[in-house]
Amino acid sequence: MITGKNYIGFDLSNAGSTTFKTFNPKLNKETEWLFYEASEEEIDKATALAWKAFHEFKTTSYKKRVQFLKKIADEIEQLGDELIKTYCEETGLPEGRAKGERGRTCFQLRTFAAYIEQGTWVNATIDTAIPNREPAPKPDLRKMSIPIGPIAVFGASNFPLAYSTAGGDTASALASGCPVIVKSHPMHAGTGELVASAIVKAARETNMPNGVFSNLNSSGIEVGQQLVAHSLIKGVGFTGSITGGRALFDLASRRKEPIPVFAEMGSINPVVLLPMALKTKGIEWAKAYASSITLGTGQFCTNPGLLLGIKSPDLSSFLEVLSKEISEIEPSCMLHPNIATKYDGKSTKMVAENSVALAAERKGNVADNYARQMVVKVDGKSFIANPRLHEEVFGPFSMVVECEDQKELSTIISDMDGQLTGTIISEENEIDDYNEVVAAMQNRVGRLIFNGVPTGVEVCPSMQHGGPYPASTDSRFGAVGIHAIQRWIRPLSYQNWPNQLLPDALKDENPLGILRLVNGHHSTESI
Amino acid sequence: MITGKNYIGFDLSNAGSTTFKTFNPKLNKETEWLFYEASEEEIDKATALAWKAFHEFKTTSYKKRVQFLKKIADEIEQLGDELIKTYCEETGLPEGRAKGERGRTCFQLRTFAAYIEQGTWVNATIDTAIPNREPAPKPDLRKMSIPIGPIAVFGASNFPLAYSTAGGDTASALASGCPVIVKSHPMHAGTGELVASAIVKAARETNMPNGVFSNLNSSGIEVGQQLVAHSLIKGVGFTGSITGGRALFDLASRRKEPIPVFAEMGSINPVVLLPMALKTKGIEWAKAYASSITLGTGQFCTNPGLLLGIKSPDLSSFLEVLSKEISEIEPSCMLHPNIATKYDGKSTKMVAENSVALAAERKGNVADNYARQMVVKVDGKSFIANPRLHEEVFGPFSMVVECEDQKELSTIISDMDGQLTGTIISEENEIDDYNEVVAAMQNRVGRLIFNGVPTGVEVCPSMQHGGPYPASTDSRFGAVGIHAIQRWIRPLSYQNWPNQLLPDALKDENPLGILRLVNGHHSTESI
Repeated sequence: MITGKNYIGFDLSNAGSTTFKTFNPKLNKETEWLFYEASEEEIDKATALAWKAFHEFKTTSYKKRVQFLKKIADEIEQLGDELIKTYCEETGLPEGRAKGERGRTCFQLRTFAAYIEQGTWVNATIDTAIPNREPAPKPDLRKMSIPIGPIAVFGASNFPLAYSTAGGDTASALASGCPVIVKSHPMHAGTGELVASAIVKAARETNMPNGVFSNLNSSGIEVGQQLVAHSLIKGVGFTGSITGGRALFDLASRRKEPIPVFAEMGSINPVVLLPMALKTKGIEWAKAYASSITLGTGQFCTNPGLLLGIKSPDLSSFLEVLSKEISEIEPSCMLHPNIATKYDGKSTKMVAENSVALAAERKGNVADNYARQMVVKVDGKSFIANPRLHEEVFGPFSMVVECEDQKELSTIISDMDGQLTGTIISEENEIDDYNEVVAAMQNRVGRLIFNGVPTGVEVCPSMQHGGPYPASTDSRFGAVGIHAIQRWIRPLSYQNWPNQLLPDALKDENPLGILRLVNGHHSTESI
Repeated sequence: MITGKNYIGFDLSNAGSTTFKTFNPKLNKETEWLFYEASEEEIDKATALAWKAFHEFKTTSYKKRVQFLKKIADEIEQLGDELIKTYCEETGLPEGRAKGERGRTCFQLRTFAAYIEQGTWVNATIDTAIPNREPAPKPDLRKMSIPIGPIAVFGASNFPLAYSTAGGDTASALASGCPVIVKSHPMHAGTGELVASAIVKAARETNMPNGVFSNLNSSGIEVGQQLVAHSLIKGVGFTGSITGGRALFDLASRRKEPIPVFAEMGSINPVVLLPMALKTKGIEWAKAYASSITLGTGQFCTNPGLLLGIKSPDLSSFLEVLSKEISEIEPSCMLHPNIATKYDGKSTKMVAENSVALAAERKGNVADNYARQMVVKVDGKSFIANPRLHEEVFGPFSMVVECEDQKELSTIISDMDGQLTGTIISEENEIDDYNEVVAAMQNRVGRLIFNGVPTGVEVCPSMQHGGPYPASTDSRFGAVGIHAIQRWIRPLSYQNWPNQLLPDALKDENPLGILRLVNGHHSTESI
C-alpha cells in the first residue's frame, strides 16, 4: 500500500508540510496518492541513522549481505501486480516493459549478491615481510577495499526500477557495505515507495541495522541538495540530465570534504554509417534504426541521436527508408507532461536551426503526452559550426549528418563531447579504411559497438556504462555491472598487522578462498 | 648541465621573461642557476604537443613503453654525481638520502615497466555472446582500460626525485599511456631539469613521440593554474600542502569538463600508545619515535605528528624519555628558508595555544634554516575543544595527547580529519580490548600500522598511500605502488567487435597471455 510517506530508516514518516502528486501521462491526470516531501529534520535523521548503521553494516559478513540483497529481490517480486500497475500508471510505459525492468532489477541484485560472495571485489593484495632485507627490513603489507560510507542515490525518470530505488547504484552500494539514502524521483514516487518498502522489509528480516536504507520524497531540488551537502554523506550516484548531475557534482566538490559523484548524464550516442554497409544493407539498417530511435519513446540514455555518414546516393536512400519507417511507427506516450513538452520544444527548435531540414515526422493527431518521432538532416559543415546541434533531444529524435568526406567525419567525432556509446556500421573489412574514425571514437566514448544499435545495455562484467564527460562525471567508473561497486570502496593497507586480527580476506589461511595478488602472483591458496 | 630552461617536448625553451633561482639552505644562499618560468605560449605549446603525442603514445605496444620506462631509470642513473650534488645543494638533505631516493625512483620506474608488461593492469574482462538467448541474444562484450589523456604532475618539495619529475605520478601516468607535463617544484628546479633531461633523452632514444613529456619551470602558482585549467589536460597528480592541493582540485572541478585530481596532501599520522605496551616497552617506543619524528628533519608526509595515550605514570615516563631523546638529537637543515620560517612560526604558535605545554625542545644555537625539534603535550579535552591543534606542523614536531580514558581516545579518532596512516602500539593481545579505537581508526586512515612507525613508505602493490580527505582528494586511489596506475585509465567496452580488430588484450587467442575475467572466471587461457 502506498502511504506517500518517507522511509526514515525502518519507519514511515511525514513530518513535513509540502506535498505533491505523481501523474498518469496516458490518462493525462494526477494519480490518487499524496506524497509528503522530506523535511530538513527528516533528512538529518536519515543521515544520522545511515552513519550509525554504516559502522555495523560494513562489518556484516559477506554471507549476511548476500542474504539481504537476495531478500530485496524476493520482496520486490512479492510486490506482484501492485508494483507493475503503479509503474505503468506513473510512467505511461507498457506492462511488458515494467515486467522486463523488474526482472532486470532483481537480476542485478542477485548478481551483486553472487559477486560479493565470491570476494574478488575487495582487491586483496598481499606482500609478505622480508625481515632480513638490506638496508631495511620489508614489512608485511596487506591491502583490501572497504566501503566509504553512506551514499545518496538519485533515481532516474526513465528507469523507475533498474536505475532507481533498488537499481544498480543502490545494489552496488549496499553490496559494498555502504548504507543508501535514495532521493526518490518525483515522477514515480509511488513506485519508489513500493520498492523502498521491499528493501526495508528485507533489511528487517535479515537483521540489518536500522538506517541501512532510507527513501526520501521530494518534488524539487532542495532535498537532494541538502543530502549531497550533508557531511555524513560520502558519495553520490545519479542518473539524469547534464544540468542536474553537474549541479550535484559542483555542490559535492565545493564541500569542506569533497565527495565522489558518479553522475551518468547526457549522450547522443553517435553512429557512423560506412558507405559499403549502406550500399549492401542500407534498408536493413534503416529499419533497425527506426526501431532503436523510437524504442521506449526514445527515452533511453543510449538512444541513437546522431547518425553520421558520407554524402552519397546510398546515404540518401538510407535516409529515405528511415524517414518512411519513422513516419509510420505508432506514436507512444512519454513519461510525463513536462518531458513531452520539453521534447516538443527542443525538437521544434532543432528543425528551426539554420541548415537543418526535417526529414521525417509522425503526422496526424497524437494524444496528450504522446511524442511525434522525428528525424532531421544537416550537412557536416553546418553541424560543426553550430554547437546547439550537438545537444541531446531526449525522446524519439535523431539527426542525420551528411559529411563531405572521411576527414570531416573524423573532425566531427574528435571534437564531440564525451558519449556513453559510439557505433560503427560497416561491412566486415570496410572499417579497416577508417582507422582515424575509429581512433577518434575510442577517445570519446565508453562503449564501442560494431554493427548494432546502442540501445540495450547488457548487465554483465564487461559492460561499460559511463564515458568521458559529460556522458558521466568520472569516466574511470561505470554504472552497470559488478565493477560498479568500485565507485563506493577505497583501499586500506594493514602493516605488520597480527594475522588473527586481519579481516578474513587478508588472513594467511585465506578462509574465504578468494583470488588474491600475493607477492606479485594471483593465487587462491593460503600463505 | 643545467640550462634553467623549460622542456617543451624535446626542446629547451626560455621564451618567458620571468626568472628565479633555487636556494642552498645549508649555505644559506642562492644557487648558481637562473631558471626561466614557462610563458603562457610555452604552456600552450606543451599541452598541444602532449595532446598530439597522446594519440600515438597510447597505441605504442607495452613492450615499447617498457623500454621507455627502463631507459628513463638508466638515464637517471647516468646523470651520476651531478644529480646527487644538485639535489643536495637545492634541499640541504644529505647525500645518503639523495642516493636512496634516486634508488627508489629508478625502482619505481622499473616496477611499472614490469607491471605493464604483465598486462593485468588493463583489467581485461570478457563476456562472450549467447546468440540464442531468450528473449534477446546476448552480445559479445569485452572491456579493458585505456589511458585518459595528458596528465599534469606537480612535484613535491620534500621528495625531489621519488615524488617529483620522474616520481610515482609520472611513472604511473607514462606506464598507462598518458603523456605527462611536469610543473617543476621551484625549490629544486635544477634537480628537476636534470631528471627531465634524462626522460627526454630516454624518449628520443626509444622513439617516443615528441610531447610525451614536458617540464615547466615556475616560481609561483600561475603556471600550474594555467595547466590545470587547460582543456587538453585530462588529469592531475599532486603532492603537497592542503591549500595547494585543494586550490587545484577546485580549479579542476570548476572546468567546463571537470577532470580527476589526485592530490596527496596533509596528514598528522596519529599514533595510539596502549597502556600495557607503554608499561613493558615504553622506553624502546620513545626512542623509536624520537627517531621517526626527526627523520629527514620531520619533512615526511607520514611524520608522526600526534601521539595519543591514556593518562598514566607510564605515559608520563614515555613522554619523559621521548623528551630527553628529542632534546639530544642533533638538529638538521630544512629544505628551504620558507619552510624553516613556517616551521618556526607554526610550532611557536602551537606552544602558545591554551593548555598546550612544551615538553621538549632542542636548545642552544642552531644554524640558519636548521629546525629545533619539538614535542608538546595537551590533555584530551583541550585537544577536542581546539581544532587548531589538529593542524599539521610540517617539520620535526609532535603533540602528545593525554586522554582521560578509552572513550575520549575513541572520540578524538572518530572526529579526526582523514589521514594517510594510523598506528597502534600494543602488546600482542592488548589491542583486543580496543576494538572501538581500531574501528574508528580504520575509518579515518589509508594505512594501519601495528607496532611500528609511520615513516617509511614501502613501494609494493599492497601499499596504500592516500586516505580520506584531506589526506588525499580521492580516497579510492593511492599514489604509491603499481595500483597508482588506475588513476589514469578508464574502461572501454567493445560490443560485437571483430576479433582481428580488437586490442591484443581482448583477442580470443590472448596473445599477451594475461590474466582475464572471462565469463566470470579468471583465466590466462585463450577462448
